Amino acid sequence: MSDQRPIGIFDSGVGGLTVVGEIRKCLPAENIVYFGDTARVPYGTKSKETVTKFSVENVEFLMKHDVKLILVACNTASSLSLEFLKRCFRVPMLGVINPGAREAAGATRNGRIGVIGTSATISSGAYETAVKRINKKIDVYTASCPLFVPLAEEGWVNKAVAYDIAGIYLNPLKVKKIDTLVLGCTHYPLLKNVIKKVMGPKVSLVDSAREVAKEAKEILDASGTLNRSKAPGEYKFFSSDEPARFIKMGEHFLKRRINCARRKE
Amino acid sequence: MSDQRPIGIFDSGVGGLTVVGEIRKCLPAENIVYFGDTARVPYGTKSKETVTKFSVENVEFLMKHDVKLILVACNTASSLSLEFLKRCFRVPMLGVINPGAREAAGATRNGRIGVIGTSATISSGAYETAVKRINKKIDVYTASCPLFVPLAEEGWVNKAVAYDIAGIYLNPLKVKKIDTLVLGCTHYPLLKNVIKKVMGPKVSLVDSAREVAKEAKEILDASGTLNRSKAPGEYKFFSSDEPARFIKMGEHFLKRRINCARRKE
Repeated sequence: MSDQRPIGIFDSGVGGLTVVGEIRKCLPAENIVYFGDTARVPYGTKSKETVTKFSVENVEFLMKHDVKLILVACNTASSLSLEFLKRCFRVPMLGVINPGAREAAGATRNGRIGVIGTSATISSGAYETAVKRINKKIDVYTASCPLFVPLAEEGWVNKAVAYDIAGIYLNPLKVKKIDTLVLGCTHYPLLKNVIKKVMGPKVSLVDSAREVAKEAKEILDASGTLNRSKAPGEYKFFSSDEPARFIKMGEHFLKRRINCARRKE
Repeated sequence: MSDQRPIGIFDSGVGGLTVVGEIRKCLPAENIVYFGDTARVPYGTKSKETVTKFSVENVEFLMKHDVKLILVACNTASSLSLEFLKRCFRVPMLGVINPGAREAAGATRNGRIGVIGTSATISSGAYETAVKRINKKIDVYTASCPLFVPLAEEGWVNKAVAYDIAGIYLNPLKVKKIDTLVLGCTHYPLLKNVIKKVMGPKVSLVDSAREVAKEAKEILDASGTLNRSKAPGEYKFFSSDEPARFIKMGEHFLKRRINCARRKE
């Protein structure tokens, strides 16, 4: 059996395109509908109620495209709203927290994990809960890094100030002797080099996108809804703000050309 | 004649409360309805179409409170959307660009003005247009400073990185030998000390809030709609995200207690 229906993916903006990139590698035949809420980005500074309201609207939009699975590619929405979404909608859903937690729990050798993310993600405690559910003995240390997103968007990834800012946020995690650091926001991979240099070579960085794609494959396989076509999947991109900006920013994250994006009305 | 109807003020978030503070000093009897669009903040990274759509909704909300004047306290919305709003609505409206430009044009001695603001404000060219309309001979140099808002919100106003970041943005204006700098975003007054130190003592900083309040008074006076009550005005605050957060952040900008804020539904 082969299920042609697309996978729906949403994020507060363009960061979730890193998940699209991994799906493309792992599940090349799948069709994808991506929605980036660029008119209301960011989510990471906003309340649970507001992020959940936005997330419900995003899922409703994706449902119109008859999706067979929804990936919540935004760490903040996954942290604050995934449980609610699962109760509201009948479509299978996967967030980025559990896959990231699973990968980190598997990677740590000394049982000390760090997690960085937006203020909302960090104060939700979602990563701690997910890691502890896997292994109670692992210690989790967290830090919110509000300047990382604008820093990445400004493209200041090689400037001295990037290292200074990273030092302020990350040094408290470094002294905890973590050996694994979860990049708990889809923008942070753009700052990978800076973060790596500040943390040192012994700390492995976990970017949940790859793990999300793997779990998506398992879910589709288990439910018999994989797309078994030999042709490469079709991709549809939507944004709530100007599509031209979405494309321009998005190509940095997808690392491919985006030929077309449309505005969600 | 005395007109009890409130003045409506909106901003993308809490920054516009600096305008409320100046209105309070200049027009203490006036009632005020303030709306901060904290669920969709920031506006400064978004397109003209999106900012205008949001601004129209904000004005519609304020109109329900029977306002006699609307102040667009957000520099981005003033730059991108004020002209459209004036064509759509019959209520008198005042933005922050013209008052800021007027003050700067009056303050400069060498005819060289700098303007800093969000990407959207700067690329709109609204300040140049406004200054040139007052005095064609004045040279205007601009810089967008995307990291200033998160820096101010993080409260890092005394850290070394704040000076480094300010240096990167402001040094190109400094070499132009400007003697006046417009703080073209309501968040920037929180970084006044940093900006002052980087620019040096000879550069005067223009924060348009005071000038906006003065012009609001002139408009109300000219149209016979001043509130001539002796009692202090009543203030109503609304936000689109959680009121508790609005209050917490807002008090920094208003420099007074906010006893109550409600969510705009």
